Parts: sequence; C-alpha cells; structure tokens
Amino acid sequence: MNHLSNISNQILSGNRVAIARGISMVENEHQNSRLLLEEIYHKTGVAYRIGITGPPGAGKSTITNKLAAAYRKQGLKVGVIAVDPTSPFTGGALLGDRVRMTDIDLDEGVFIRSMASRGSLGGLSKKAIEAADILDAAGFDIILMETVGVGQSELDIAGATDTTIVVLVPESGDSIQAMKAGLMEIADFFVLNKSDRAGADQAVMSIKMILNFKTKKDGWQPDVIQTVASEGKGIDKIEETISHHRKYLEDSSGLKGKRQKRMVNRIHELVKEKLHIEFWNEAREKYLLLNIENVIRKDSTPYDLAEKLLQDFTK
Amino acid sequence: MNHLSNISNQILSGNRVAIARGISMVENEHQNSRLLLEEIYHKTGVAYRIGITGPPGAGKSTITNKLAAAYRKQGLKVGVIAVDPTSPFTGGALLGDRVRMTDIDLDEGVFIRSMASRGSLGGLSKKAIEAADILDAAGFDIILMETVGVGQSELDIAGATDTTIVVLVPESGDSIQAMKAGLMEIADFFVLNKSDRAGADQAVMSIKMILNFKTKKDGWQPDVIQTVASEGKGIDKIEETISHHRKYLEDSSGLKGKRQKRMVNRIHELVKEKLHIEFWNEAREKYLLLNIENVIRKDSTPYDLAEKLLQDFTK
Repeated sequence: MNHLSNISNQILSGNRVAIARGISMVENEHQNSRLLLEEIYHKTGVAYRIGITGPPGAGKSTITNKLAAAYRKQGLKVGVIAVDPTSPFTGGALLGDRVRMTDIDLDEGVFIRSMASRGSLGGLSKKAIEAADILDAAGFDIILMETVGVGQSELDIAGATDTTIVVLVPESGDSIQAMKAGLMEIADFFVLNKSDRAGADQAVMSIKMILNFKTKKDGWQPDVIQTVASEGKGIDKIEETISHHRKYLEDSSGLKGKRQKRMVNRIHELVKEKLHIEFWNEAREKYLLLNIENVIRKDSTPYDLAEKLLQDFTK
Repeated sequence: MNHLSNISNQILSGNRVAIARGISMVENEHQNSRLLLEEIYHKTGVAYRIGITGPPGAGKSTITNKLAAAYRKQGLKVGVIAVDPTSPFTGGALLGDRVRMTDIDLDEGVFIRSMASRGSLGGLSKKAIEAADILDAAGFDIILMETVGVGQSELDIAGATDTTIVVLVPESGDSIQAMKAGLMEIADFFVLNKSDRAGADQAVMSIKMILNFKTKKDGWQPDVIQTVASEGKGIDKIEETISHHRKYLEDSSGLKGKRQKRMVNRIHELVKEKLHIEFWNEAREKYLLLNIENVIRKDSTPYDLAEKLLQDFTK
C-alpha cells in the first residue's frame, strides 16, 4: 500500500513515469487500480476534456496533434489519449505515427498515450476515462480523447468529455448516412477535414441539412468547420469553437450539469460492477452451471433461473 | 394477461401480425415484453442463427437477401433482422431497399424486420436478440441477423449467433486495419464482396495473412470467400461454408458449448438488469443526488459514495 501511495503521490506531482505506470495499471485491470484512482480523485475535475471522433482515415490524429501544439503555444499542458481498436499484432501503428510528430513528442508539457483494445473491445471506454482521470490529477489542463467510429465505446467516451468533435471527410457520405444517429447524439460540432477535396461543399451542405433538423437539448447549435489539417488550415477555428462551446457551457451552467450527470453515471457503473462481483460468488456460479442444462432443455426458463439466483441475495 | 397469452400463442402458431407486434413490444420495451419472452421461451433454440456484419456499403443487405432466397429454395423458413443504426428521420432507407427485393418480400416463408436505433445506440443488441427469439419460437428455421460495423453492439450480436460472417469489399483497406481486432474476434469466415473490382486479390491476401496469425480457439479455421453478390456469384459458396461450419460445430459439440455460453451470458445480463432496477429505488436515487455535490466538491469520492449506497443492500 505504501508503494501505491508512492505512485499516486508521484502522479500528483506530474512524474511521467508514474503517470505511465498508473495508466498501465488501469489498462491491465491491476488489483490496486481502483485504490490508485481513489487516492488521486481529489485532484481530478480540473482539466477540460475534449473528445475527437470519426471514421478511420478522417485525419483525427493530425487534428489532435495540431490542436495539442496550439494549446502548448498558450502554455497549457496537454494530455492525449488515443483509443485505438487495432489488433495486438499491428497495434503499434498509431503510436508509430505519433512518434513521428516531432513538433510535440519531445515536449514535457504533452503526454500521449495510445490505448489499444488488444482483441477485445469491451471495457476500453471505462479504462480510457480512468486514464483521463490520471492525466487530470497529474495537472494536465487539456485532455484530448481520440476515438474511432461511433459505437457504444465512443458514445461512452463522448459522455465523459466536455466538448465532442466529430471529424468527417468529403468521402464519408456513406458513413455519414450510417452513423448519423450516433453522430447527432454526440457532436458538439463537426469538422469536415480534407476540405480541399472534391465534394467538400456538398458534404458541408448535407451535414448542415441534418443539423437543421435538430437543436441540441441544451440549446447549443452545432456547426460545421472546414479544415485541411495536414496544412494546418482551420485548426485555429476548431480551437476557437471549442472555446466558444466551453464558455457557453460555463455561462449556462451546462458544464456543471454535464459533470454532475457524468458523476451519476459513474456511480451507477461502480455500483453495477460491485454488485456483479458480489453476486457471482462461487456458490452462485456453481448453481448456475448445475441448472443451466434444465434451461437449455426447456424444463425451466432463463427468467426462472435468474429469479431463483436472486432470491437470497438482497435483504 | 389473457391478451398477452393470446399474442404468445399466435406467435407460436406463426401468425405474422402477432410476430410483428411481439417484436414491437420488445423494441419499445413494453412492460409485458419480458412476460411475453417467458411464455414463448420453451419453443426457442431450434433456429440456426447467422450473423452478417461489415462496414456500410459492403453489400450486406444484398447478401442477406440472396441467402434468404437460397434457403427458401430448400423449403426453409427464414427470418431476417436488420439492425440499422440510421437516424429516425431517414431511417426508412434500408427497409425501403428491402421492399424492392421482390424475389422474397411477398413470400410467407420470410419475415423481415428492420430495427433502428432511433437516436440511441444503447440496448439495441439486446432487443435484436430478443426479436430473434420471437422468430425462433414462431418456427423460422434460419435467422439472419444483419448489423453494421463492429462496435460493442455487433460483438454482442455475434455472441448470440451460431455462425458469423464478416463482409468486406476491396476498398475497405482502412476499415480492415481499424476493425481488425473486432473482426478477428467474431468472424467465422470472411466474404470479400464486389470481388470483380480492382484490388480484390490484394484484399484477399491481406485478410489471409491476418488469418494465418491466429487459429480460432475452438479449432475452426476461418477462410475468405469471394463474391459478387449483386450478380448472385458466390452465394452458393457462402451457404456451403455456413453448412460446413454448422456441421463442424455440431460434430465438435461446439454448438452446444456456444449455446450454453450464450445462456450463461444471458442470465448474467438478466441478473444485472434486475439488480440495477432493485437497487436504484427512490430512496437511493435521492441519496445519490443529495450526496453527489460532496463528491464533485471533493469532500468525498465516487468510491466512498458507491460503498455507502451499497452498505444496506445485501444480506
């Protein structure tokens, strides 16, 4: 336990090795990771969290890197978490790309971490959010969370950021169609990257048309920003819109509401996790396996079996 | 309750209106949907369930429709559930496409249902699996479950099918890269559709290379099948490979294992759901809201609050 407190103290003082170890503990579900998160909790809640999502190839990494560089110029410390659902045996690709971004990678004010799914997509969002807490507690002012796609993981991560940006390209017509519901749900604004390509104007129009159908519940109206991130074009506009959104949230007490809702979700999750662990003790697992054949043979139903298992659990 | 039993009896006798109503009950989380599922449970577990997934535009709908037609020729009854994460205001697109498939849509031996996420991606996989149970109980021999992408929802659905097919196209290079982990996890075999296009051979080679890295845990070796589904080319090969996989699962008792695992997951889910509902009564919700400010102000931690909430719940 002493050793653990040592790590958390080092994290709180911004030690990079300790931060990396802390995130690894979270990533590997180390038995002490929850205690670690408890110990650093009082220093969290300071960083502003920005989600950057969109289909593969949209240029999210470039935008993330340029945004990080822009914030650095303002003297802010920037943490980057890239949630990368690639496979274990080629999983280094994204990290490799980043290492080449020499404008930021040798900077002590930036901490970049790639979190891969390693063959299983479950639980990754939770781990990414916990990693953000570690960076938050370590004193990073801005946390950029980059994710691919808009599956459930991305929705979960978007629920844990203050501003969420969805990056598209002129070619993503099909994807816009397919991901619309998810996108509309999470985007505080859209970025149409590679806007120098054919079809950009049309893509902007389609997105605007969709946006016109719907105003966000909290009164903020999402817009579309055009960029050519590889040339640095439009990054200032993204940064400006994030500032506007942040100010909007702060003035309207939307930020407080967002963070409160986030905390409610988190406690729901903690309770769910704890109940699951407490419930499935050896005796109940055994009972389940002994009786599951009856259910499969149709002598009983899954609903009956669940009821029977639950019977003696609660007061 | 009488009315409900009426619906379930009609579902069991294959009445199409009752099937549609039953699925709507599940989709809308009708208060009696669980009772309905209980009443039909004893007739489930007969259908063979096939998952068809892949990126947008890969031709999944065409393959699904042609496969359905092929099974019909064998005299089998086919249910199709298309899980469609499009938005509410353009959500009819997929269903519209299907209606045009006149070779199967007037056939009483086919039941097609599109389930859209209607703005929220959560819970869709559970509902799709329950809809499959209804079709199963109604006497459909084959159930085709079509999903887009490989997010958590798709993994959940793949966990609930007997054979899972991942459909790609020569152009999905980027997607293959990004979705590799998820794909490897769920694919019993791959279909490279639109194989008459440039880059098909290279795409097959990339997939095979990835496949060579890994043998599925249960001993089955996934392969790649090339198709041009719009011209009906290769559909017979898909059907044949499904049969092989089915036979493999049956001979190796893999099917029994798969279905047992599926049932264990299902009971875990039922218990989780029930515990969540039982736990979050009015008193605890109130306690949470009263104390969450302390947590946000850092006078307490989410872990403490969760513990306090849990204290009086279990025996």
